[in-house]
Amino acid sequence: MRNLEEKTLREKTWFEGRVVKLVTADVELPDGTTGSREIVKHPGAVAILPICDSGKLLLVEQYRKPLEKAIVEIPAGKIEPSEDKEITAARELEEETGHVAGTLSYLTSFYTAPGFSDELLHIYVARDLKKLQHHRPLDEDEFVNILEVTLDEAKQLVEQQVIHDAKTVYAIQYLELENLKRQLEDE
Amino acid sequence: MRNLEEKTLREKTWFEGRVVKLVTADVELPDGTTGSREIVKHPGAVAILPICDSGKLLLVEQYRKPLEKAIVEIPAGKIEPSEDKEITAARELEEETGHVAGTLSYLTSFYTAPGFSDELLHIYVARDLKKLQHHRPLDEDEFVNILEVTLDEAKQLVEQQVIHDAKTVYAIQYLELENLKRQLEDE
Repeated sequence: MRNLEEKTLREKTWFEGRVVKLVTADVELPDGTTGSREIVKHPGAVAILPICDSGKLLLVEQYRKPLEKAIVEIPAGKIEPSEDKEITAARELEEETGHVAGTLSYLTSFYTAPGFSDELLHIYVARDLKKLQHHRPLDEDEFVNILEVTLDEAKQLVEQQVIHDAKTVYAIQYLELENLKRQLEDE
Repeated sequence: MRNLEEKTLREKTWFEGRVVKLVTADVELPDGTTGSREIVKHPGAVAILPICDSGKLLLVEQYRKPLEKAIVEIPAGKIEPSEDKEITAARELEEETGHVAGTLSYLTSFYTAPGFSDELLHIYVARDLKKLQHHRPLDEDEFVNILEVTLDEAKQLVEQQVIHDAKTVYAIQYLELENLKRQLEDE
C-alpha cells in the first residue's frame, strides 16, 4: 500500500499552556506538494472505571468549560511529567472519588482526537474499592459531584446525553459487553 | 447537588486556523476564586461505520500528523459550516471510500476530549453500500488507503494498536455487542 508519511518542513508554536501546546506544521505530502497541519499537543491522560462491590459505578459530575456545561464522566486526569500511568490512575481515583482500589487493571488505550491532537488516553478498571476517611484533595481549581449508579442508570444517562464523552460511553459499552458475555457463558 | 458553573471573566484568542481555534478563558470558580481554562474550539465531526453486504467493514488508513504515524480508522471528517450532519456523513463516505450508502442510520454522538476541546463527534452506520465508478475526490491534502476487513480482523487491528482511536475502537466494540445480542436472541 502507498506510503502516507507527511514530512515536517517547518513548525511554529502559537501557544504553550499548562495543559496543551498548539503548533502548526508545514508538511510535504505524499504526492510531493505541501500542506499545513494544526496540532494540539497534550501530555496524555488516564481514566478509571471504578466498580463497587455492589456492582454500582462511581462517576463524577464536572463542569467542562469547553462545552459550557457539566457532564457525568468516569474519573480521569492528565498524566504528570515522568509519572507512571498506573500511579496517575490511582491518584486521580483517590482525588476525585476519595476511594482507593484493591485491584487496578488495564483495559485499553486510544487517541481521543487524532485529526488534531496527540492526546492518548489509557483506561483502567478499578475494583475492591475502599472509601478513605481522609484522602488527597482535588486540585484547587477542580470541583466535582460524585454519583453512584447502576449500569442501567448509566445507560439512561447515556440516552439523556448527560454521559456524553468518548471514554465514558466506551466504558459503559464495555460493561454491557462483559455482561452479555457472562450471560452467554451461563446458558 | 452543588452548582459547578464556571463564569467567564475574560477570553483571549491565541490561534485561529482552518480546523481549530485556541482560546484561554479566565473563569470564576464555584468557590468564588478564579482560574484559567485552555479551550480548543472545533466545528464538530462525523464518522461513518460502513458495513458491506458481506459483513466486512470499510476502513481507511491515514497519516495522522499529530501522532507522526498512520492509523486505521472508520471514515470521518469535520462538519462544514451550515452543512447537515447526515450530508457530511454521506459526503465523507463517498470521498474517502468511493461508496454511497443505501441506508445511513445514526448511532451515537460524544465529545472526544471534553477536558480541553468542544469537538462533538456524531457516528453513523452505513449499509447497502454501492461502489461508484466515478466519485467525488478527496480534499487535495488528503491521502488514504482503503481496507476491507472482517470484524475479527478489525479486533486484531485493535489488539495491535493499528486501530487506535476512540471512534473506531468504540465502533468495533458496538459491532461485537450487536453480534452477542443476536447470539443471545437465537438461543
